[in-house]
Amino acid sequence: MKQCLLLVLLLASATIVHAGHVLPGKPASTNVRGAEYPRVLSDGRVVFRTKAPEAKSVKFRIGKDYVASRDSEGMWTATTDRQVPGFHYYWLMIDEVAINDPASETFFGTGKQTSGIEIPESGNEGDYYTPQVVPHGDVRERWYLSQVTGVWRRFFIYAPPGYDHHHDKRYPVLYLQHGGGEDERAWVIQGRVNHIMDNLIASGKATPMLVVMDQGYARRPGEQEVPLSPPRGLFNPKPGDPPLPAFPPEFIRMFSAFEAVVLQDLIPYVDATYRTISNRDNRAIAGYSMGGMQAFMIGLRHTDTFSAIGGLSGAGGGFGDGSIDPKEYFDGVLEDAEAFNAKMRLIFIGLGTAEPERILNGVRGYHRALKELDIKHVYYESSGTKHEWLTERRNLRELASYLFR
Amino acid sequence: MKQCLLLVLLLASATIVHAGHVLPGKPASTNVRGAEYPRVLSDGRVVFRTKAPEAKSVKFRIGKDYVASRDSEGMWTATTDRQVPGFHYYWLMIDEVAINDPASETFFGTGKQTSGIEIPESGNEGDYYTPQVVPHGDVRERWYLSQVTGVWRRFFIYAPPGYDHHHDKRYPVLYLQHGGGEDERAWVIQGRVNHIMDNLIASGKATPMLVVMDQGYARRPGEQEVPLSPPRGLFNPKPGDPPLPAFPPEFIRMFSAFEAVVLQDLIPYVDATYRTISNRDNRAIAGYSMGGMQAFMIGLRHTDTFSAIGGLSGAGGGFGDGSIDPKEYFDGVLEDAEAFNAKMRLIFIGLGTAEPERILNGVRGYHRALKELDIKHVYYESSGTKHEWLTERRNLRELASYLFR
Repeated sequence: MKQCLLLVLLLASATIVHAGHVLPGKPASTNVRGAEYPRVLSDGRVVFRTKAPEAKSVKFRIGKDYVASRDSEGMWTATTDRQVPGFHYYWLMIDEVAINDPASETFFGTGKQTSGIEIPESGNEGDYYTPQVVPHGDVRERWYLSQVTGVWRRFFIYAPPGYDHHHDKRYPVLYLQHGGGEDERAWVIQGRVNHIMDNLIASGKATPMLVVMDQGYARRPGEQEVPLSPPRGLFNPKPGDPPLPAFPPEFIRMFSAFEAVVLQDLIPYVDATYRTISNRDNRAIAGYSMGGMQAFMIGLRHTDTFSAIGGLSGAGGGFGDGSIDPKEYFDGVLEDAEAFNAKMRLIFIGLGTAEPERILNGVRGYHRALKELDIKHVYYESSGTKHEWLTERRNLRELASYLFR
Repeated sequence: MKQCLLLVLLLASATIVHAGHVLPGKPASTNVRGAEYPRVLSDGRVVFRTKAPEAKSVKFRIGKDYVASRDSEGMWTATTDRQVPGFHYYWLMIDEVAINDPASETFFGTGKQTSGIEIPESGNEGDYYTPQVVPHGDVRERWYLSQVTGVWRRFFIYAPPGYDHHHDKRYPVLYLQHGGGEDERAWVIQGRVNHIMDNLIASGKATPMLVVMDQGYARRPGEQEVPLSPPRGLFNPKPGDPPLPAFPPEFIRMFSAFEAVVLQDLIPYVDATYRTISNRDNRAIAGYSMGGMQAFMIGLRHTDTFSAIGGLSGAGGGFGDGSIDPKEYFDGVLEDAEAFNAKMRLIFIGLGTAEPERILNGVRGYHRALKELDIKHVYYESSGTKHEWLTERRNLRELASYLFR
């Protein structure tokens, strides 16, 4: 027990160690307990620090590389440029190997556990995604055996305040997907879905609803041989190449097992287990980035199952020249705009204005295409934020305020 | 979106990359999606591998250091000795810096996010801590504003199968603590509390109960100046030093704010929020390692609040010579063994036989001391397991089978 106890004592006394110094800025909220670095300065710059006496070079990679300088004891320090507010993945590069910073929490993103840092917004905007003294719902972890894939899967479900007390009340459901390289934990941990929903519901800005977050990956037994690499030109057509379809069939194939999981496994399980209002009017699907593409694909192919679709920094197209041929696009679902508009309760598209150009163009192109087709939709831009979780928290706040009204 | 999609495609096709090779053993279940290494061989040895072309030295630290050898492309590989089955934290050492292995999931332990690897047991013993086709409960994440500390805290609560459907049924509660350097996530993630409880309840081996897991750290506002470092001799008395008390007052001070949180914040919140049976007969406290010390301290000081106490690889003493002076020990709570035995429903002590000598001696010493005082208790040893989470899964399985019977 000695080891454990000493550790606790060290952790508990970490603030004392530095009591004599006045360190610049504040420890990031994403630091592990007691870690003084990374520190966020009032102007949004970050001071990173790590100990690596044997290393030849140390850099901190957040958007770009910041070369650290070494002191005589092997402590390496770097100060970054001003960071855009939000949640950013980052890496510590020791001798050119990208590793996690032991001083920060890690988050499942980029296909593995990755260091993350929260750069706070100015003012109190962040209140909507932090716990407040309002009625709280909870986030529940559930496991189910998927008939489609043959393996156990996990999802998280947000249950709104009062769910455990109003036993006759039933709720609409939002199915909400993470981005590529992330998993079902992302909306809970990086996205703070519970705080956002609690605060929106408390202020009357959102209808109480359930939010289901599953992982966006699935593979039928024996399906590993399906070619998963679409042709290069899909992402980056050369001049003179024929225009790409707005939602290439390669993606439909890629997401097909997940689509089957949602329809055949997940929705029936959720409807049987939680007090949902089990009809299309009270069922929505949305997602971030790759999850937004999945939401549009699954939503548009199953308008009898979903009445609302949200694309958060990723939507239903934009790989080609931005135009949609409504005859070709998802079996002509958008061909009769009037009928589509009458049937769907909400189409939502959100985007951060500082996202990479490719994503700006893709999502704005899709927005423009929907407009040209007279497809009614809500379009939101988050000012000054990147392809990351502050944009998505804002996107969710906006989306949730329109859903099931 | 290109980046995210490519990443997904890479992940999805990771098994194809190696399709031509026959690799030894199997990827560990703790690997991130698609990672082929670390691999566990059938005899319990582990093959670790990582890419670090610029590194001067690479080791894998799991119990001891295993020096890796480099191939011409900068890939470093090491094969360990046979590992004891269970869940082990480990590190990748690049040029003497301890870092996480990007190929494994990370777990909050040792005061930070740390790589972990699961060495499976032989046979099917692990069935009890993996999901089975039985009724499932769920694990719920909750936030509350602590009056004692003035800050928001998070806990997890396991709700048994049927909790959402039997609206008039109330449940006993186990408060279950993690070890030093871990936090409230540990029993859910490393401990697999939900699967263990689901399976025990399904087989009739445990009474349906709620299990509350909070973090074992707390500090009252302004309390940072309290000296948190007990004298060295406390852990390692020199020959000739006076015998140590079985539970030194330094520890009582150290855990005092947490004790107040449990009694003044947590129990009232849980009783107000969930359908508990709110009396001492239906309330237990237990914990792993440091959490076991906390459980005994809080349980023995508040026998009107708790009727059962569990010490899992850590209990109510053992820092001195193993003996307890019942006059001095927690206000004489054990002085009248008959009265104590009549009042308490369960005292449970569990231990892995391959734990470090210091812990073996401490917990066995406490077991012996209780026997000498005629204090009724259940004592369990997990054969061949260390101070880690396989021992604790077994400990919980045993403890839960005795609770609230």
